[in-house]
Amino acid sequence: MHTHDLIIIGAGPAGITAAVYAARKRMDFIVITKDIGGQTAWSGDIENYTGYQFITGPELTDKFEKHMKKYGANVKEGEGVLELKKKGNLIWVKSDKGEYQAKTVIIASGKKSRELGVPGEAEFKNRGLTYCATCDGPLFAGKDVAVIGGGNSALDAALQLINIASAVYMVNVTGELTGDSIMQEKVRQNNKVTILNNARVSAVLGDSQNKMVGAIKVKQGNKEKTLSVKGVFVEIGLVPNSEFAGETEKNKQGEVRVNTYNETNVPGIFAAGDVTDVPEKQIIIAAGEGSKAAIRAFRYLSRT
Amino acid sequence: MHTHDLIIIGAGPAGITAAVYAARKRMDFIVITKDIGGQTAWSGDIENYTGYQFITGPELTDKFEKHMKKYGANVKEGEGVLELKKKGNLIWVKSDKGEYQAKTVIIASGKKSRELGVPGEAEFKNRGLTYCATCDGPLFAGKDVAVIGGGNSALDAALQLINIASAVYMVNVTGELTGDSIMQEKVRQNNKVTILNNARVSAVLGDSQNKMVGAIKVKQGNKEKTLSVKGVFVEIGLVPNSEFAGETEKNKQGEVRVNTYNETNVPGIFAAGDVTDVPEKQIIIAAGEGSKAAIRAFRYLSRT
Repeated sequence: MHTHDLIIIGAGPAGITAAVYAARKRMDFIVITKDIGGQTAWSGDIENYTGYQFITGPELTDKFEKHMKKYGANVKEGEGVLELKKKGNLIWVKSDKGEYQAKTVIIASGKKSRELGVPGEAEFKNRGLTYCATCDGPLFAGKDVAVIGGGNSALDAALQLINIASAVYMVNVTGELTGDSIMQEKVRQNNKVTILNNARVSAVLGDSQNKMVGAIKVKQGNKEKTLSVKGVFVEIGLVPNSEFAGETEKNKQGEVRVNTYNETNVPGIFAAGDVTDVPEKQIIIAAGEGSKAAIRAFRYLSRT
Repeated sequence: MHTHDLIIIGAGPAGITAAVYAARKRMDFIVITKDIGGQTAWSGDIENYTGYQFITGPELTDKFEKHMKKYGANVKEGEGVLELKKKGNLIWVKSDKGEYQAKTVIIASGKKSRELGVPGEAEFKNRGLTYCATCDGPLFAGKDVAVIGGGNSALDAALQLINIASAVYMVNVTGELTGDSIMQEKVRQNNKVTILNNARVSAVLGDSQNKMVGAIKVKQGNKEKTLSVKGVFVEIGLVPNSEFAGETEKNKQGEVRVNTYNETNVPGIFAAGDVTDVPEKQIIIAAGEGSKAAIRAFRYLSRT
């Protein structure tokens, strides 16, 4: 088996930036990733990636991808990593399509959407219930929809849906919306939006034929009501894609612990971006961390 | 005196990104800065700011500045901070033009060029000797120049000068060039460039009228030679602009110590970017740190 200098797992902002840096340092590396862009691809309007006053998630993803591929990076797309193990001085990586080994690894596998865990969620997934407003929003033109959550992702989803749906309910478990004030104001000022605070979804119900979403049940205090909606957008947070990284130390949330050098507890294994315990999950932060991890992996190779 | 939520010191990638985040969170803040862009403004071609495959330093600076000013940020440009002090729960900031106070401060004042410390340097500064290839390179069309240094900044300067000067000496104190391989290759492949490794500048000499740079003396082992050059580009590293931050803890290099939350040892005082001890100085890293610091300052305000 060929031994690479570096395997990068994931191609969101952290993985792609690591790839750009690795390529410029002429490292022998591959990128193994399920998709390109990670959470960025799912984002609506982005106004806080410094240097781009306004860009959509898919557009920024496209720029990221082209930047990485400009250097001829070997990207194994649509491939998921199953296992990761240190064997002697090398790191062995098993994916759903093959096996690889390298002297260093950067875990940049990001996060995935947290599920509601209520009856009907599994049944109506992709049949009206979705975790991606950017991907699926356009399917709900002229319909009533619900966004579950009250943070930036939920606000972002609501702002996207305002332009598409006829009515948007925001079902927020806390006492008030969180997330950027500027987004909160835009959401509050729009008369298509109804905000339900201290509210929790208790079930997702089907339509008359029970094939697609027809309604949700919402509990507010002791009261329970049924909202008739055709779309349910779940935006209640994220969980790290770190199951495969068995040997690396994680925090209670399952985030891979890193120090300021992006080193994990296993020498040669680095991590960057949303999968780590670095505070705040932002595109610009993940990108910075990816750069730092690649430079550190390069230094590790020079030393060993 | 009006009490701001936040004072950001510096407007490089870290300070500007902090300003974008602070503005989006509707914080009452000002930016006090000597210049806009920091080291980015002095950079030549930038190919590793993720999302921009290729952009010049001044172009990226312009995008950064517009991004910050889009939100109507109150930027006190051309103003240098002299002193910073915690007084009770507030932080008092004294500049060369006034006094301010705020509940939080982000130190993002970056770094400045390290000096050679040899005879002739002070005398010929801005008379042929410079620390900024991007700014002053064009003045040396068709002339012989020397770049002092061997890292990324020196390589960047050499690559800029190749297109302008007639011959470029690289005077590098270590055994070989450091910095990105891709840049090293470009420099090595160019026949205008002569690389002198294990070489140290011992003096900067004047021309016949002693008004402008005429030559440099270079020591290689026991040998000393004189290189006839009209321009000297000093690229031997940077020192942090942290003199004013008296109370904050610093490392041996004078960098402000921060934890992963960008907190300094003084509650309410945060720091981000090249002025800190965060490893690796890159535009994308500084920008990410600026975001992290602003979010943290915002959380600090919510808590206090």
